[in-house]
Amino acid sequence: MSSEESNSNRQMARQNGIVQPLLTDLYQITMAYAYWKSGKVNDVAVFDLFFRTNPFQGEFTIFAGLEECLKFLENFHYSDSDILYLQQTLPDNIEPEFFAYLKDLTCKDIRVSAIEEGSVVFPRVPLLRVEGPLIVAQLLETTLLTLVNFASLMATNAARYRMVAGKNVSLLEFGLRRAQGPDGGLSASKYAYIGGFDGTSNVLAGKMFNIPVKGTHAHSFVTSFSTLEDINSVIIRHAETQEPCNLLELAIEWRKRVSAIIDISPEEASDGELAALISYALAFPSGFLALVDTYDVKRSGLLNFCAVALALHDCGYRAVGIRIDSGDLAYLSVLARETFESIAGAFKLPWFSKLTIVASNDINEETILSLNEQGHKIDCFGIGTHLVTCQRQPALGCVYKLTEINGQPRIKLSQDVGKVTIPGHKEAYRLFGADGHALIDLLQRSSEPAPEVGQKVLCRHPFQESKRAYVIPSKVEHLYKVYWKDGRIHTMPKPLHEVRERVQSSLRTLRQDIKRNLNPTPYKVAVSDDLYNFIHDLWLQNAPIGELS
Amino acid sequence: MSSEESNSNRQMARQNGIVQPLLTDLYQITMAYAYWKSGKVNDVAVFDLFFRTNPFQGEFTIFAGLEECLKFLENFHYSDSDILYLQQTLPDNIEPEFFAYLKDLTCKDIRVSAIEEGSVVFPRVPLLRVEGPLIVAQLLETTLLTLVNFASLMATNAARYRMVAGKNVSLLEFGLRRAQGPDGGLSASKYAYIGGFDGTSNVLAGKMFNIPVKGTHAHSFVTSFSTLEDINSVIIRHAETQEPCNLLELAIEWRKRVSAIIDISPEEASDGELAALISYALAFPSGFLALVDTYDVKRSGLLNFCAVALALHDCGYRAVGIRIDSGDLAYLSVLARETFESIAGAFKLPWFSKLTIVASNDINEETILSLNEQGHKIDCFGIGTHLVTCQRQPALGCVYKLTEINGQPRIKLSQDVGKVTIPGHKEAYRLFGADGHALIDLLQRSSEPAPEVGQKVLCRHPFQESKRAYVIPSKVEHLYKVYWKDGRIHTMPKPLHEVRERVQSSLRTLRQDIKRNLNPTPYKVAVSDDLYNFIHDLWLQNAPIGELS
Repeated sequence: MSSEESNSNRQMARQNGIVQPLLTDLYQITMAYAYWKSGKVNDVAVFDLFFRTNPFQGEFTIFAGLEECLKFLENFHYSDSDILYLQQTLPDNIEPEFFAYLKDLTCKDIRVSAIEEGSVVFPRVPLLRVEGPLIVAQLLETTLLTLVNFASLMATNAARYRMVAGKNVSLLEFGLRRAQGPDGGLSASKYAYIGGFDGTSNVLAGKMFNIPVKGTHAHSFVTSFSTLEDINSVIIRHAETQEPCNLLELAIEWRKRVSAIIDISPEEASDGELAALISYALAFPSGFLALVDTYDVKRSGLLNFCAVALALHDCGYRAVGIRIDSGDLAYLSVLARETFESIAGAFKLPWFSKLTIVASNDINEETILSLNEQGHKIDCFGIGTHLVTCQRQPALGCVYKLTEINGQPRIKLSQDVGKVTIPGHKEAYRLFGADGHALIDLLQRSSEPAPEVGQKVLCRHPFQESKRAYVIPSKVEHLYKVYWKDGRIHTMPKPLHEVRERVQSSLRTLRQDIKRNLNPTPYKVAVSDDLYNFIHDLWLQNAPIGELS
Repeated sequence: MSSEESNSNRQMARQNGIVQPLLTDLYQITMAYAYWKSGKVNDVAVFDLFFRTNPFQGEFTIFAGLEECLKFLENFHYSDSDILYLQQTLPDNIEPEFFAYLKDLTCKDIRVSAIEEGSVVFPRVPLLRVEGPLIVAQLLETTLLTLVNFASLMATNAARYRMVAGKNVSLLEFGLRRAQGPDGGLSASKYAYIGGFDGTSNVLAGKMFNIPVKGTHAHSFVTSFSTLEDINSVIIRHAETQEPCNLLELAIEWRKRVSAIIDISPEEASDGELAALISYALAFPSGFLALVDTYDVKRSGLLNFCAVALALHDCGYRAVGIRIDSGDLAYLSVLARETFESIAGAFKLPWFSKLTIVASNDINEETILSLNEQGHKIDCFGIGTHLVTCQRQPALGCVYKLTEINGQPRIKLSQDVGKVTIPGHKEAYRLFGADGHALIDLLQRSSEPAPEVGQKVLCRHPFQESKRAYVIPSKVEHLYKVYWKDGRIHTMPKPLHEVRERVQSSLRTLRQDIKRNLNPTPYKVAVSDDLYNFIHDLWLQNAPIGELS
């Protein structure tokens, strides 16, 4: 392992330092004691981790967070100071043997099956199935939920932005300052990348997860310069000839020539802004991307940018583009593109018309859809608050429900049918049609044979008797793999970039009407006939006496 | 230092491991290089960190996060691996001396003045004023924003819940599983406590911050028991006499007696639930608080709870109460209280009428207000998603703006007047009336004398010429203290419980109409006449040429 890798692993360990058994709700530990005390140490349970509703009024979710769940299982261990803390916190009458029991607990007898990270997933289909000692499986609940809920929510949010933005636009995550805490920011960067973003402004996320990092300068950089006298150096060596060029003189000259073309007086443009852009260009001659809205995009920013970009070109460098952080982004991006095209024409510099236009002002899915309708000319969106806080729906409601204990199925009834759990040890299959699209997800009892290609399968709504259909799959995908078994990782989770690719390939299997922004069609999740009858027999056995609900 | 303290400090260090200089936007580092390259190493700047709008449609905000900002300043240092990463990430032509410069950077020349953590604060009044070398002060921006934004948002949210719930109701934070990442959960627990919550379910937060932790059991605990045969032990020793008591027999007997009083047949109640509650009571006889809505609160949960609570009483223990996690919380809490009162009367056990009722189903500010109107009988709310994700407004928009450089004021103009910054090095004062209420916050230029008690002060709206008023303060509070100076903490931030008290005492200085939930009155933030003229002279000097905006 190189020293860089080991450094990066140390960083990771630091971040993961807080993902430990005490990162849980106290009731998991009080329940563990009650189970322990009532002799349930050898009880074996099955828990399903699933959600009930897709976020963002959509009809799909991206599953993420699996790798972090596996790391948590690997490191699951109560330290001496954890035990001490629990002894101080729980009531005095707790039997000391319980703490000895906790001290030795690991996840060696736990088995976790899961859907592949980065897959599209749907309500009620378990993302994780956790099997093993009741007490240990129960103790994992809160931490697994914490790790899956936000990761999946962020990845889904990012994937939605990618869909509305289209393939040809770059998406950058700029949300660190508005994120929910430092780790909220890091998770946002990571899962935004997985969901389809191209990079982040968050340097630590870049270092830890090997995600491209991007950024230029802020308004404060521009306002820190007042006049042309604020520039300390003006000389840059030509990229090829190494001849010294005076970037200030060249820029002032170009500003005059450009102003004639775009009909803006050079006097209207801010000299402080020009000084700032020249200084920035001197520092980053090959990566010159300038913020142009500090004063006025039309009358100052664009003119100053073009002047410096053309001056840089005289010195053998090509500018990258501009960023606009306020105002009417459709209008301003069109204005900027027209300006670049005029200049490209006037000075015979075709590349100038292709300069990058970045936009970054409080952008959300709706803004992008509206900009699309208006015919914007933006090449890249920098997205912050709405992305990282998932403003439209800031939590995914994954739950973790007991479905079997000692081989006996468990059902959680509720007056709200949507909250009734599907009992027992189950498998999940995705059935595909001949055109490659996913048709339906099917839950079966684990004792049933898997659906077969070309054979008709009866798919039933889990709770509505009349809703049923036969499906003849052209392809059957068993959704679960065993990821954790015998105290270690059994299937290695895929590296970040493969999970990122999985998101896009998995989304491609969904019909467009399921993915669309407005009134998407729900994807069907069904149960087998056997599982349907199993659910309803159990429901009947557990039905309350004396009331009709 | 005790071993516990040192353990807790290690935990803290682990959490703070990610709060480091690379937890920033890349553009801070590219700007630093551009400043460095243009000879601005010795430039001195003043930045203000402030927000423009109070969150949650309210008219106040609680400032929090200061202690974490100070820790960040203390530990500010680029490691070798950070420098290596930056060398790989920035363009090739960056001068190597810049990395040597970064390597040696610390916050020794930075001075940070701030408002006391836990204070009520208002739009445009800087929470932090950061002075020092331009490059270093700029490099702090993103991390300081990340640390202040979420902390203040959470503390404000929690304080709002406390206000609507009133003083006599307990508030517990139950949000870890829905938090935005593991650290989002820890921050939520910490700042909810500061804002006025009484405890959290998050065990690690309890350990790290010494916050009370609370919790009982989940529905899965109840559903893991099916019949009375699932109980492994039934014997508990009497609290005083140490005589063995059969809790199961007692509970079954009591269930019959109670069912007669509350007119519910014992056959309607779930035996699995009774088994679960008995097992839980055996584990926590002094802390018996039971979830009663797994099957049916009215027909099963309450009856089983009362049976076990009365059985425990026969063994010398007093139960604590119940938790309801679904359904009509107003109706069910009234039903539960009436049931407790009937039993208290029937069996001459007055304490039974005072049993605690905890409610915890997707509760937000509006739910509590509506429950208040309906006359609920809830003693304690457990609040999760809405609290920790700040669902109503998931980000506070703090910004960090350059206001002075090398003694010269800087103003950021904008077509949106609300976004114009107040330039220069300023002081902030809070003026109080004779009744102890805060009247107005006043920003002045630092060169002006402080307002004096009993002397009239002209307070002006920063941007509207006609809005002005004389105020004669009965008390003047200078809002800033220097917290960081000469490379170390200059004023120790207060411990958590004192910050928590500060929130309540600070809120008491606000008039009720400013704090109310519906259409609150805005609190006034003004500038002195001198500062007003200073702003507008500078605005004029920087006004664009050739357009009326």
